Amino acid sequence: MIRTHETRQRLLDTAQALFYARSYEGVGVQEICRQAGVKKGSFYHFFPSKRDLTLAVLDESWNHFRDTILHKAFARDVPPLQRIKRLMELQYRHHVEVRDKTGHVYGCPFGNLAGELSTRDESIRKRLKAILSDFRQPVQEALDEAVAAGDLAQLDTQATASAMVAYIEGLTLVAKANNDPEVVRKLGPAILKLATVGDTG
Amino acid sequence: MIRTHETRQRLLDTAQALFYARSYEGVGVQEICRQAGVKKGSFYHFFPSKRDLTLAVLDESWNHFRDTILHKAFARDVPPLQRIKRLMELQYRHHVEVRDKTGHVYGCPFGNLAGELSTRDESIRKRLKAILSDFRQPVQEALDEAVAAGDLAQLDTQATASAMVAYIEGLTLVAKANNDPEVVRKLGPAILKLATVGDTG
Repeated sequence: MIRTHETRQRLLDTAQALFYARSYEGVGVQEICRQAGVKKGSFYHFFPSKRDLTLAVLDESWNHFRDTILHKAFARDVPPLQRIKRLMELQYRHHVEVRDKTGHVYGCPFGNLAGELSTRDESIRKRLKAILSDFRQPVQEALDEAVAAGDLAQLDTQATASAMVAYIEGLTLVAKANNDPEVVRKLGPAILKLATVGDTG
Repeated sequence: MIRTHETRQRLLDTAQALFYARSYEGVGVQEICRQAGVKKGSFYHFFPSKRDLTLAVLDESWNHFRDTILHKAFARDVPPLQRIKRLMELQYRHHVEVRDKTGHVYGCPFGNLAGELSTRDESIRKRLKAILSDFRQPVQEALDEAVAAGDLAQLDTQATASAMVAYIEGLTLVAKANNDPEVVRKLGPAILKLATVGDTG
């Protein structure tokens, strides 16, 4: 049982790394098996299809993101709006780390697959939709807390948190196209402007 | 000469449509040739590689976007900030139109390829970086005009325009993951909040 679990985990970790470095279509089951040191027949024992593997990779990536970056960003040792700023800083540092190691900004593992697969696979698209909604939750909670504390005027915190997640996805994508994490450092703090009430137009 | 030009154009139009509907890797040269009614040998006469085709598709897509949505959005018949709002409305309508025709939100043709290919092809990434910078220009000009007219306080219009382009890319990606253009309609107008001076944190 332990070896079985290990084999499955090795396939997941390998696929996660390869999808993130390249794309979904840019990586074949054969290459995943080779890099993981697992036979192709064994692959299909764990995952009936590449789609099933991808859904498991998404769960894995989400759990990792939630337990590392989100967990650190939204720790309650600083006021709520500072947590949102810290989220941007942690993402910046992540992209610097990946770029220093690989030469590339890899972007967002969820945004990448959403852009590539949303028109082509409903089950993957729905999982990504749910992940983006889960991503919104801690942002919205921080905004609610800031409103309650009087740090922000009353506003639609759900819509604002959705706008903030969209802004993060967009910044990450632009940083990837520029191959430059500085995009996130320079433009990240402007995320809090999305919480101003009313607009200028 | 006319037939030669037509053949090249047919390959371009077919590839543009297929890449936008799916992805880069999800479409092969063979399928492009079949749909365009062009022989594979003839394809390589016009485009030495799929990369060369893709660079030409990007030029084509950019020219189209600039001459339609950007041209309409930034017409000078309304005040500058209203033009940025109109850009969001026109993009919303585009996504509704595509969704009604195909059942899917296709997202941004540039953002899609940036997410899929930026780690893998430097010439395509650099072209996408240049396109995102060109996209920023009219937004920045509108902001400069709004500042000059006193509609906005002094601010770094280049950084603000970059943030706005990132926001547009992010909203478009989230709309694609949700397969729902309403994301762009509901959250689009908040783009002007990015032009407020100072932040709340």
